[in-house]
Amino acid sequence: MPHTQHNPQALARDVASAMWARDRATQALDMQIVRVAPGEAVIAMPVSADMLNGHQTCHGGYIFTLADSAFAYACNSHNQNTVAAAAHIDFLAPAHEGDVLEAEAVERSLAGRTGVYDVTVRIRGGKTCALFRGKSYRVSGEVIQRGAPEGQPAQHN
Amino acid sequence: MPHTQHNPQALARDVASAMWARDRATQALDMQIVRVAPGEAVIAMPVSADMLNGHQTCHGGYIFTLADSAFAYACNSHNQNTVAAAAHIDFLAPAHEGDVLEAEAVERSLAGRTGVYDVTVRIRGGKTCALFRGKSYRVSGEVIQRGAPEGQPAQHN
Amino acid sequence: MPHTQHNPQALARDVASAMWARDRATQALDMQIVRVAPGEAVIAMPVSADMLNGHQTCHGGYIFTLADSAFAYACNSHNQNTVAAAAHIDFLAPAHEGDVLEAEAVERSLAGRTGVYDVTVRIRGGKTCALFRGKSYRVSGEVIQRGAPEGQPAQHN
Amino acid sequence: MPHTQHNPQALARDVASAMWARDRATQALDMQIVRVAPGEAVIAMPVSADMLNGHQTCHGGYIFTLADSAFAYACNSHNQNTVAAAAHIDFLAPAHEGDVLEAEAVERSLAGRTGVYDVTVRIRGGKTCALFRGKSYRVSGEVIQRGAPEGQPAQHN
Repeated sequence: MPHTQHNPQALARDVASAMWARDRATQALDMQIVRVAPGEAVIAMPVSADMLNGHQTCHGGYIFTLADSAFAYACNSHNQNTVAAAAHIDFLAPAHEGDVLEAEAVERSLAGRTGVYDVTVRIRGGKTCALFRGKSYRVSGEVIQRGAPEGQPAQHN
Repeated sequence: MPHTQHNPQALARDVASAMWARDRATQALDMQIVRVAPGEAVIAMPVSADMLNGHQTCHGGYIFTLADSAFAYACNSHNQNTVAAAAHIDFLAPAHEGDVLEAEAVERSLAGRTGVYDVTVRIRGGKTCALFRGKSYRVSGEVIQRGAPEGQPAQHN
Repeated sequence: MPHTQHNPQALARDVASAMWARDRATQALDMQIVRVAPGEAVIAMPVSADMLNGHQTCHGGYIFTLADSAFAYACNSHNQNTVAAAAHIDFLAPAHEGDVLEAEAVERSLAGRTGVYDVTVRIRGGKTCALFRGKSYRVSGEVIQRGAPEGQPAQHN
Repeated sequence: MPHTQHNPQALARDVASAMWARDRATQALDMQIVRVAPGEAVIAMPVSADMLNGHQTCHGGYIFTLADSAFAYACNSHNQNTVAAAAHIDFLAPAHEGDVLEAEAVERSLAGRTGVYDVTVRIRGGKTCALFRGKSYRVSGEVIQRGAPEGQPAQHN
């Protein structure tokens, strides 16, 4: 019998694995899932040369993208298909080539179809790089079929 | 004699060229500058397979990145080095592989060191995809040396 | 026969009248509806001594409240009960006792249950004081019974 | 010898007292300072009949105003004159007449002239009502003269 039905932590992990398998964007950016839990996710990403803007610092878009990914894994961790409705980001310190950024998402609120998640992006071994707050919206369907072998994606995806 | 000293439109165009030449992030994403003017910029980007998330729609991070780039070109168009301090984005409609996104940035406010820019991201021939509002902060230095031949970058970059 | 059924402008005006009649907050702040139209509203408010903070400038909360009211009248103007889900405000210039603030709300997007409205708050005869962007969410019910004499509120309010 | 010069907690308390004495807006709304500490503040406010909008719930502007006040007391607690540059609020649950709202502000970041503060607004004995995030900007001057008897305001205010 599948262990994910009554174990939120195992469910969060299985959901993350299934999302990851079909998520080309995060894979292409060399992201790494450090940790997932119900309502939480930590994802790391190295800053590559292709992410540098004209100031030779990491383009804010990539910092946002990392935060948005951590947000996505956190808000889908309950196995309800959930999308980003809005997000706000404050940029605090620049990141440079070779830095490893780590984004930690935590659930601040979840009621009805909407949730609020706070994501802190830190430079590993250094400063806080950005603070992100995302608003989620639950759409229909589940991420994985509960009880499906190997976390098979639900049909609608 | 350089024409950019008294012509804001020519200055905006020369600044954009200089920024572009050293901006690996926007080049790597196959962006295209459609138009620049003082306080304004329109940039286009095709949605590639590498930008798709687990829902098979364009990762919100790339939509943000495009908007953030248009914001950057608009807020640097006066040739004062300017960075993003914060941004807010509302996601309105999903984009799919093959769509061309177009982000139009306009200046809403500029006073002292800070400015506010609104960016509308549209799917070419389709819906509005996202609304973005960015807060800019002017740092020291200029983007290009005024009067320098061929819009040579100022020394500090 | 009621004229509001096929006339969006008349409907917007009747909705505003009905909202105003039961809206103690805006009345208590001496606000004045300058103009309403489908998806739009302009509301004015004088800055009173009771609105001053410790810096002797208008408390940002009152500037927000005015913007939020203009937003509310704009997003309810289609006669669908609609509430604020979120809002962002950038404070640009301080307001002082005796200033009259004018907030102009316009609809930027309306799709499904959610809308985005931009509100510009200006000091009459002076600077732009704040830029506000609100996200609306349509709940059940209508503001007024269409065709009801004198814009009578719908039962649920 | 004044005890505030080397004691951040005593300084935060003296600053709050001095701000309060000249802050008509928060006094007029019957707010109460529950607690202040360096970078933190908790303020309570009862929802009065004059705060009700047309839905007979507390106008979002007053919820924002309370959060903004907690933000102001938190970001000025280090005795550097500081103003709100921007704020974002997510409305989670409505408040009603007679509810007591409590806003708790905490410092998330402080670097150079800018800071980020998170404020949680709760209905006492009930749900979380709103989540607020404010961006602060330090201007010139101090809130109180250090060492002045009875927390006398600095001259510039």
